[in-house]
Amino acid sequence: MPFNLFSTLSNKQILDVNIGLEREGLRVTSEGTLSLTPHPAVFGDKKEHPYITTDFSESQIELITPVFHTTNDAVDFLDSLYNIAALELDNEFIWPQSMPAITPEVEDIPIAIFPNQEKDEQYREYLRNKYGGKKQLISGIHINFSLGDALIQTLYTKTNQQKSYQAFKHDLYLKLTRNYLRYQWFLVYTLGASNTIHTTYEKKCVDTMEEISPETYSNNKAISYRNSLCGYQNKEFIELDYSSLENYVDSITAYINHGVLKDIRELYTQVRLKGKGPVYSTEDLLQDGIEYVELRTIDINPFVKSGLSVADLNFIHLFLLYCIEKEEPPYEKWQLESERNIQKAAVEGQNGQLMLQQNGAEVSIRSWGNEIIQDLLKMNEQYELPFKEVLKAKEDIIHNPEKTYAYKLGQLCKEKGYIEAHMELAKKHRDAAFRERFLFKPYTDMELSTQILLKESVKRGISFGIMDRKENFIELIKGSNVQYVKQATKTSKDQYVAVLIMENKSVTKQILKRNGLQTPEGEEFFDLASAKESIHHWVNRPLVIKPKSTNFGLGISIFPKGAGKESLIQALNIAFREDSAVLIEPFIKGKEYRFLVIGDETVAVLHRVPANVTGDGISTIQQLIDQKNENPLRGRGYKTPLEKIQIDENMKLFLEQQNLTIDSVIPKGEEQYLRENSNISTGGDSVDVTDMVPISFKKIAVEASKSVGANICGVDMIVEDLTDDHSPYSIIELNFNPAIHIHSYPYEGKERNIAYNILQLLELD
Amino acid sequence: MPFNLFSTLSNKQILDVNIGLEREGLRVTSEGTLSLTPHPAVFGDKKEHPYITTDFSESQIELITPVFHTTNDAVDFLDSLYNIAALELDNEFIWPQSMPAITPEVEDIPIAIFPNQEKDEQYREYLRNKYGGKKQLISGIHINFSLGDALIQTLYTKTNQQKSYQAFKHDLYLKLTRNYLRYQWFLVYTLGASNTIHTTYEKKCVDTMEEISPETYSNNKAISYRNSLCGYQNKEFIELDYSSLENYVDSITAYINHGVLKDIRELYTQVRLKGKGPVYSTEDLLQDGIEYVELRTIDINPFVKSGLSVADLNFIHLFLLYCIEKEEPPYEKWQLESERNIQKAAVEGQNGQLMLQQNGAEVSIRSWGNEIIQDLLKMNEQYELPFKEVLKAKEDIIHNPEKTYAYKLGQLCKEKGYIEAHMELAKKHRDAAFRERFLFKPYTDMELSTQILLKESVKRGISFGIMDRKENFIELIKGSNVQYVKQATKTSKDQYVAVLIMENKSVTKQILKRNGLQTPEGEEFFDLASAKESIHHWVNRPLVIKPKSTNFGLGISIFPKGAGKESLIQALNIAFREDSAVLIEPFIKGKEYRFLVIGDETVAVLHRVPANVTGDGISTIQQLIDQKNENPLRGRGYKTPLEKIQIDENMKLFLEQQNLTIDSVIPKGEEQYLRENSNISTGGDSVDVTDMVPISFKKIAVEASKSVGANICGVDMIVEDLTDDHSPYSIIELNFNPAIHIHSYPYEGKERNIAYNILQLLELD
Repeated sequence: MPFNLFSTLSNKQILDVNIGLEREGLRVTSEGTLSLTPHPAVFGDKKEHPYITTDFSESQIELITPVFHTTNDAVDFLDSLYNIAALELDNEFIWPQSMPAITPEVEDIPIAIFPNQEKDEQYREYLRNKYGGKKQLISGIHINFSLGDALIQTLYTKTNQQKSYQAFKHDLYLKLTRNYLRYQWFLVYTLGASNTIHTTYEKKCVDTMEEISPETYSNNKAISYRNSLCGYQNKEFIELDYSSLENYVDSITAYINHGVLKDIRELYTQVRLKGKGPVYSTEDLLQDGIEYVELRTIDINPFVKSGLSVADLNFIHLFLLYCIEKEEPPYEKWQLESERNIQKAAVEGQNGQLMLQQNGAEVSIRSWGNEIIQDLLKMNEQYELPFKEVLKAKEDIIHNPEKTYAYKLGQLCKEKGYIEAHMELAKKHRDAAFRERFLFKPYTDMELSTQILLKESVKRGISFGIMDRKENFIELIKGSNVQYVKQATKTSKDQYVAVLIMENKSVTKQILKRNGLQTPEGEEFFDLASAKESIHHWVNRPLVIKPKSTNFGLGISIFPKGAGKESLIQALNIAFREDSAVLIEPFIKGKEYRFLVIGDETVAVLHRVPANVTGDGISTIQQLIDQKNENPLRGRGYKTPLEKIQIDENMKLFLEQQNLTIDSVIPKGEEQYLRENSNISTGGDSVDVTDMVPISFKKIAVEASKSVGANICGVDMIVEDLTDDHSPYSIIELNFNPAIHIHSYPYEGKERNIAYNILQLLELD
Repeated sequence: MPFNLFSTLSNKQILDVNIGLEREGLRVTSEGTLSLTPHPAVFGDKKEHPYITTDFSESQIELITPVFHTTNDAVDFLDSLYNIAALELDNEFIWPQSMPAITPEVEDIPIAIFPNQEKDEQYREYLRNKYGGKKQLISGIHINFSLGDALIQTLYTKTNQQKSYQAFKHDLYLKLTRNYLRYQWFLVYTLGASNTIHTTYEKKCVDTMEEISPETYSNNKAISYRNSLCGYQNKEFIELDYSSLENYVDSITAYINHGVLKDIRELYTQVRLKGKGPVYSTEDLLQDGIEYVELRTIDINPFVKSGLSVADLNFIHLFLLYCIEKEEPPYEKWQLESERNIQKAAVEGQNGQLMLQQNGAEVSIRSWGNEIIQDLLKMNEQYELPFKEVLKAKEDIIHNPEKTYAYKLGQLCKEKGYIEAHMELAKKHRDAAFRERFLFKPYTDMELSTQILLKESVKRGISFGIMDRKENFIELIKGSNVQYVKQATKTSKDQYVAVLIMENKSVTKQILKRNGLQTPEGEEFFDLASAKESIHHWVNRPLVIKPKSTNFGLGISIFPKGAGKESLIQALNIAFREDSAVLIEPFIKGKEYRFLVIGDETVAVLHRVPANVTGDGISTIQQLIDQKNENPLRGRGYKTPLEKIQIDENMKLFLEQQNLTIDSVIPKGEEQYLRENSNISTGGDSVDVTDMVPISFKKIAVEASKSVGANICGVDMIVEDLTDDHSPYSIIELNFNPAIHIHSYPYEGKERNIAYNILQLLELD
């Protein structure tokens, strides 16, 4: 069959999509037992949290993504949610499979607590009584899917319909649904991964299986118990009328009237048609029309941290487009047939000889599967879509059941036992989450500080929006409080003029001095000529020459031991390249610290150390650098909290001055500096010293911030002796856009949750 | 005598000085009668006002400058104070001479009212009773003078003193004072200008003179009645001990103890030694030491708006340096002699044969005067100072009494009568003040908007400081409220993020739309390639192409009738030169208005009209432009509210398209545009339409400003039909740093006091 519905459309047009993902996951102890502790308090009110809540059980975390327009973004966000949730659990883990971990007696399974929301709790009681608490613990992935409006519009125009746009759209989703149901067994076979259960699961299920390893049960050929009768399904087979929205709703209403369903929420079909409103009711659906479909077939993939890979979601995406295009056979009993097929595939799918029913005729699972996969490959080729790779992998699975996720999981469980197999995966995923704890996907193109703030917001149930991605401009919303934030620390809480003061070093100093704060007494020049005239005062005095308004260290020269007139003029020249005004200031003895003040508090103090290695008596400098660069906090191009140490001419010269090369071996325990400057950007280390700094200096930093009226302020202070709370100090600079990642993820010392301090300042906590 | 005290010093070092000026001036009606109305309320509490207060009488305005370091700045500021005061008077004028205008009976002269300050009023009562109310109305100029600290330091080092620095400094000021008193007659002769009085002045003075024209009295050879016995002087000759500060204070105390003076404030010597404190008392003076001298000799110069020219202040400055250097003759009775000399010069100075006493010997005023002027010329030459011109002019006066200010004033009064002569000058000065009402000297190097804000602050008694002159960064202080302001509209009242939102056109639009406000629906591009791909949507549609973040109209192309692909790509190219993001928006029909929102109010609405002339049927375009350019609001280089219309190639081309040249004559009453664009910077007109704009659009502007959280916001709005309050509109842009001068001084329409709106917002009013 030649495909043509999407012909002439570009890849971008065809793949115009809205996808939201939901993933459940049980909290378990490190021994794999269902956790009996409450949902972590840091996530706040689970009823209001847009991203992290609970499903049936208090121990069943549910991760919910916003709607995205690419599969990649949706999966990335889900993955970030996993990281956030996993890293907030205190010696608990997220169970990586759809079928539950070690479960207690039904009456001991904690139902989700919703304070002051009696109805929510009552509904869960009803479900437990009807379906049993163990089944309610089954977790899965739901995909909320719709085509982009522009795509539907294009299809509508292209097919030159007589009917209304709305009717066209309904027909499109109804056809998708019917074909989805016809081929749903295919998704179960290719993606299913819940073929083992624990001995503590429902006895009548356990009894149908064999113990494949201690406490581990399976029939050895199943794919997805979650999609079987042992899974979570309506009490009886539900046959609905998919010919129109009205008929669909009528057929559901009939089941409700007959008492089979309490209401539409209890409908557990593999696809549900949904409207745009937040309430899922027959009335709203009828009134609003179909806006998207909810797909409920997909098991958690135990081998993937988030539970779903991008490749698999792309595969599902193509499958759904196929369901929209594929012509429907005229066979009438297709619903019952497809229900039987999915059951078979779920329970016996690993049997390559398994026979299914195709429009009343027998066909082997392998042959039908191959038919579908060839269709998909053709479709992919014809529309020049980029999914050949995943399709080829699935083709392989069709022909080789031992390549299914299910087979692999089964083998692992056989080898290690149900609990150890899954807990190893859970811990591996948690460790991976920790390694990338500073990132917030899919926003890794944004500044690290913004990612960190977004991550903390999402953790705490604060809705966010991206106002301008390139500019790191976001909005954070909690109730009626809408806060716009740029670059993480540019907020509504700072006065514009406070920023302008900090931007102007000479104005800053005038104000600091007035407030009795120490700051180097310098001179300001507006042209090289007049600077040259006055320069004789400064010859051979320890000093700093710097442009008045830059913030990035550009054009700054430091002469700790003073310098001659020629050198000073050269430094002036360099500074004047950056700004039309240049400052000369005395150089102050001591170490420089970054005090981060938020509101009335110094929330973190950081010391920056030039790139360095510590010797082991064996390794060369080059080797020590390579070892140090393995730290996942180190990367390139400011995508990580620290930069990799890079070997360059400057470093070689620096080492040369100490009679060293990069091949020199450094004695054990000896710290060897590799550069003069302490910039993080050239591989320097950040060391959190917050808890070592005397309160007197923390107060000075707050006073400095207050003196210019700032609420978020990076105070750069030189302190001669940090152990002496009366030590001489000097405030070098105030920064209105201090980076937060350096404090959040330092090389050494405690990680400070600065993002939360900012959210508190913004009254979003 | 060779001068050497200042030798080897640079001009800058020698002229290192602190100068503050005070100038009194009577408020009079347009007929020259002393005003009986209260001090203008706009100046607020006169006791607290640092710059504008009253002296003895409620009608006697006193203008007080801060301390400046150049004569030019001090005079400029005084001149600005004159402008501010003169332009706030409602059909009243500032009397331009030291001797009073038409005065009522003594008991009807209003003594200055100081609510809740009984002591101030009582002291004035005491003075009236003692000296008479008429004399109290005499006005003059006081100069508070000291050498710069660096200069005194240099002199101290140079002369290698055994005594302490403080003692050296005291000796310096004491010598200055003694010599000043010796030569004070010389200043009276060269600068005096109060040689005529009105018939309503004190009878016993009038009786000594002849009526030189109706109601006008003089002896025809006087120079300065203010410095004569008819002026304001102590009841008896006060001889003080100027040998040391202690002796000085002791000798004053003796007069107080004898009841001649009530306290030190009543000491009316020509020079008073003063300490640093705000209180003028013998105790404070003794404790603090001498910080400066107050010179009280100078009459108001009726021919100069502020009452004192820079040239004359330079002359005085040099004279004071001369007094510091000039060796003192050993003659003992110098005080009485100098008192007699000043009286003679004051009353008979125009008589070139007048004989004075010089160390007991007779000498003609001309010959002694010449001696001093030659000394000054020599000093000027030897130290290479730049005052030759004013010295030569004064030399001329020494030889020609008819070149004195006094002679000129006498002649004018003879010709026009006392009142008309002075009122003509008063009105001329007031008109000159009006012509430069938008300026605030000496800060004319700063932006006009900042000058306007400073001017309004000074008017209202708000102290100011210049934090960074080049950056237009100021501070405004009232009581404990310190406000930092940059570029007039960057203040503490705007959130930083509000500014960042306004800076980002796409974020601004998202927020405007959310708030239900109309704004053109456009598209944003980040590179030329993807813009080119989408450009076909926009071909032949009326549109605007603009860079996302510039604020100055750079890189914007407008196609009101649409354009072909090639033109659009060219425009995109231009826009991408200014920013890495470019917007394409539909072009909206209508005229563009600038709504200025401050706080909760649209305080002004402006329409900008392209450079244009209106024909008279006779003049050529060139001539019409020349006439229009004579408007003092028009200047070059943004130093005035409007720019002169400049003829350039663009204009010629524009006219050519209409078959015109700059020599064409435009029919009477016909308006001829000269350019396409309406920028003020290319000679456009600004038209205030505030009172014509329906309230509905003013509310929309406020809503737009509020939507981004702004308190100062320039809303650029296109309105199709301003007469229809339901007209379609579109908000083009929000500006966070709107210029205020365009509203303050429009070409047409009401001048809006925006600076006051800002002060109110800053809670400084």
